Amino acid sequence: MDIAIGIDIGGTNTVFGIVDKTGKIYAEGIIKTKGYSVNNYIELLSSEIKKLLDTLKVNYTLTGIGIGAPNGNFYKGTIDEAPNLEWKGTIHLADIIQKQFAVPAWLTNDANAAALGEMIYGGAQNMKDFLFITLGTGLGSGIVSNGKLIYGHDGFAGELGHTIVVENGRRCGCGRNGCLETYASATGIKRTAEELLKKDVSHSVLQQYSKEKLDSKLIYEAAKKGDNLALECFDFTVDILGKALANAVAYTNPEAIFIFGGLAMAEDLLLKPLKIKMEENLLYIYKNKIKILPSQLKNGEVAILGASALVWSEK
Amino acid sequence: MDIAIGIDIGGTNTVFGIVDKTGKIYAEGIIKTKGYSVNNYIELLSSEIKKLLDTLKVNYTLTGIGIGAPNGNFYKGTIDEAPNLEWKGTIHLADIIQKQFAVPAWLTNDANAAALGEMIYGGAQNMKDFLFITLGTGLGSGIVSNGKLIYGHDGFAGELGHTIVVENGRRCGCGRNGCLETYASATGIKRTAEELLKKDVSHSVLQQYSKEKLDSKLIYEAAKKGDNLALECFDFTVDILGKALANAVAYTNPEAIFIFGGLAMAEDLLLKPLKIKMEENLLYIYKNKIKILPSQLKNGEVAILGASALVWSEK
Repeated sequence: MDIAIGIDIGGTNTVFGIVDKTGKIYAEGIIKTKGYSVNNYIELLSSEIKKLLDTLKVNYTLTGIGIGAPNGNFYKGTIDEAPNLEWKGTIHLADIIQKQFAVPAWLTNDANAAALGEMIYGGAQNMKDFLFITLGTGLGSGIVSNGKLIYGHDGFAGELGHTIVVENGRRCGCGRNGCLETYASATGIKRTAEELLKKDVSHSVLQQYSKEKLDSKLIYEAAKKGDNLALECFDFTVDILGKALANAVAYTNPEAIFIFGGLAMAEDLLLKPLKIKMEENLLYIYKNKIKILPSQLKNGEVAILGASALVWSEK
Repeated sequence: MDIAIGIDIGGTNTVFGIVDKTGKIYAEGIIKTKGYSVNNYIELLSSEIKKLLDTLKVNYTLTGIGIGAPNGNFYKGTIDEAPNLEWKGTIHLADIIQKQFAVPAWLTNDANAAALGEMIYGGAQNMKDFLFITLGTGLGSGIVSNGKLIYGHDGFAGELGHTIVVENGRRCGCGRNGCLETYASATGIKRTAEELLKKDVSHSVLQQYSKEKLDSKLIYEAAKKGDNLALECFDFTVDILGKALANAVAYTNPEAIFIFGGLAMAEDLLLKPLKIKMEENLLYIYKNKIKILPSQLKNGEVAILGASALVWSEK
């Protein structure tokens, strides 16, 4: 059986798993990302993966290793100055992993990896042109055109979350203002709620939560129950994201836009109105052609599946 | 000698020429686009091209025919409801031309064709990821990623001129408001001058021209001589286009952005400040990596070269 290993490096934890071509995860593991030097981290990661491989009860051929990592540079196989990681400078992770396991290794950022996961295992299996958008802490995205993920010249393509959509808008973690992800993400909708709560004097169930406790899930629950302020949060998010998607369509004319993340569950509150808002703003040649679809990848699997999909898409 | 034929269909005229792989144009011709039924037009076009081929004094192999046309649909080889042409509905031009000449024919819009021209004959010959932008009556664009032009799912990718960059902005020919091309194009800069002339009471040399006479060339000439209002037109255009290009980079992370059109000649007034404005607005991972370059295609040749480049890029 041909297998791939998928490794997803997050700011706090690193998850990894053994995956076959159909997207079945045979085994998985987790280690902390924080608290190690690069060398110690890689040593631990490799030994944990080797242990995991030893648990496999089938004959297998290890085809390759895919890695999803913040600021992942596909061409160099490096992590370049990732603000969320403790390691500074450029880390040649793919090369090191490749030597450890004597199989090819590839590396890209987590949203690009997830887009490949959608293409290899998910709803985009028969598509050659689509956008993948993940609404989490930020807004991550991957663009597939002509059946290939677009990496761009330096390996950093597909940063729709950092297109500036509001002039002098909200402060973004990237140091600029008005980036799409400051509005359209789990964090963005929370910021919207906070802004509205400051202004609003009428009753909203969201008033009872502390700043720490308030999150996109609570806003979603409140909106489902008809809370006006929570509904306004969704309207505002839909307005900004819908217009941004209409512009995005004019770049690569995708067949579909996949939305991943907890908010993508909000079909009536997010996906349906998003489609309407996007259609309102589309150039006429694109109207009624572009689907907005929930990702078919599961929340608990996307990290490992996405990273492992790098292997099948590159082999 | 292998040759290709390039045909460019404009609202008024159609130009066509015989081109080799190096971009040398051996012969060219022109007919009116207006005033014919589709059938009569195609009949005339074919007979004129055949006459042109007869003038060739070398042995040649006709490799294929490329067509640049408004609303050109690459996949279907059709012109779909082009507002600037007299023919209504869908015209299956590539199929008809293919039969007439018994060689493959491809069709796309003129800006996509010009992007291919830059890749095959011009400044992007060694590039796999670039944007091509033409500043004319509108703003046309073509996106090349992974060495391939992005056509998208329906064949209409690369319409950066119709991304909305100003909320409730200038009325666009497409029926919406605030499209990039209403600001950043020869027509756009003229509109900027008109708006500023209405407000301005100080002296500008541009005040002497009628609305009909005023054009981007006169604005450029005035700006070169230090006319404040004309300089302000360039500043305003650079501000909007520079920010739009910074956003565009976040999509496909190009190596370079090529600018074509009369305004691209304005190096000190447009290209240099555009680079500065784009850099100011770029996400940090892209800074100091993206070139802004004038197109290396000649104004009088771009239409035929672009269309003919379709052949070499598809063969």
